[in-house]
Amino acid sequence: MNLAMPTSAKIIPKRNSSPEQLLQATSDILMKRNSIEVSLSEISESSGLNSALIKYHFGSKSGLLLALVRRDAATALGQLDWLVKMSVPPAKKIRLHVAGIINTYIKYPYLNQLIHNLLTNSEEKITKEIADFFVKPLVDSQLKILNEGVDQGVFRRVDPMFFYYSIVGACDHLFFGRYSRKFVYGVDEITPTMKEAYIEFVSELALGALRKE
Amino acid sequence: MNLAMPTSAKIIPKRNSSPEQLLQATSDILMKRNSIEVSLSEISESSGLNSALIKYHFGSKSGLLLALVRRDAATALGQLDWLVKMSVPPAKKIRLHVAGIINTYIKYPYLNQLIHNLLTNSEEKITKEIADFFVKPLVDSQLKILNEGVDQGVFRRVDPMFFYYSIVGACDHLFFGRYSRKFVYGVDEITPTMKEAYIEFVSELALGALRKE
Repeated sequence: MNLAMPTSAKIIPKRNSSPEQLLQATSDILMKRNSIEVSLSEISESSGLNSALIKYHFGSKSGLLLALVRRDAATALGQLDWLVKMSVPPAKKIRLHVAGIINTYIKYPYLNQLIHNLLTNSEEKITKEIADFFVKPLVDSQLKILNEGVDQGVFRRVDPMFFYYSIVGACDHLFFGRYSRKFVYGVDEITPTMKEAYIEFVSELALGALRKE
Repeated sequence: MNLAMPTSAKIIPKRNSSPEQLLQATSDILMKRNSIEVSLSEISESSGLNSALIKYHFGSKSGLLLALVRRDAATALGQLDWLVKMSVPPAKKIRLHVAGIINTYIKYPYLNQLIHNLLTNSEEKITKEIADFFVKPLVDSQLKILNEGVDQGVFRRVDPMFFYYSIVGACDHLFFGRYSRKFVYGVDEITPTMKEAYIEFVSELALGALRKE
């Protein structure tokens, strides 16, 4: 291990520490391209930091990408946490929740592909970590909204696991299907109008399963 | 190139040709394990064929795995084609279609992970091929069922692309989420009861979007 690394990491002020700089540089690079291919030397060049710092802070490139998913997801999960506590009708919360998932994928165009890549290619340690910091809070928040609706007598009781996989799957697949969007539908980019219409479509799907007849 | 290959391929009778043997050997191996990791030497050993034949018939391991997806999907797509032509109510066709997707993922436990892996890691040529042989026929068949329902006055007109991504995404995500099923819900295996209940849940989601009030 290069003994200079901890020292050089210490020089960077806390508010914009080298881990943050590396994550932001990676995010900036991925934002500009249509893939999740990024090399350590590109990150190093863009951040102005030695690529050895990636190994020092994140262990590996996978570790860095996982930390980026965690950073981006944290913002979205924070908003969800806040949404759960809002005093708006449960049906409105479902709509805002669906919008939150779809807007997160729009905001970070690399995020969906990154999550799928990490989950398909990584060892169990990484998939467990994603389940812990990403899926579990999402599931817990959804459950609170579902229970609130049931308690208020406006939602039917549904299997929360089925609700999770079907609704998150519906949000996810528009983004995961970028290849078929392009080749089958000729739709390369999700326009704001299309995004809003899809949020409405999936919200109605979800509420169709929940609303009492 | 090994000149013995075409000759040795010719010895195998047509009905059980070496490409078929290689695909079946790969399928058999993947059936038994909880991952899509398989080596050329394992396939060679299990099929009793020289691993050079993989390169000869499929170009690469990716080519072999793509051919396996194509083989497995062909069965399911053939059934869907037959379903579209059946004289049953459109709502029943939607149920059978949802069951068809979910049962295909149950029948070939490696299929979901294989599709996600090929789509996340491959060059555009492969993703285009998957879109062509897999997504396009699925989209076309769905559209026929949707149009039939509209023509019969039992379905509302919905955006077929939105319908495709949300319903296929809902079916897909239960399987893609194997990691979170396990870590978050403690559900390692999809039991026949759970499978039937999920088919019912997603069918009702789909029909909720389609049924005229």
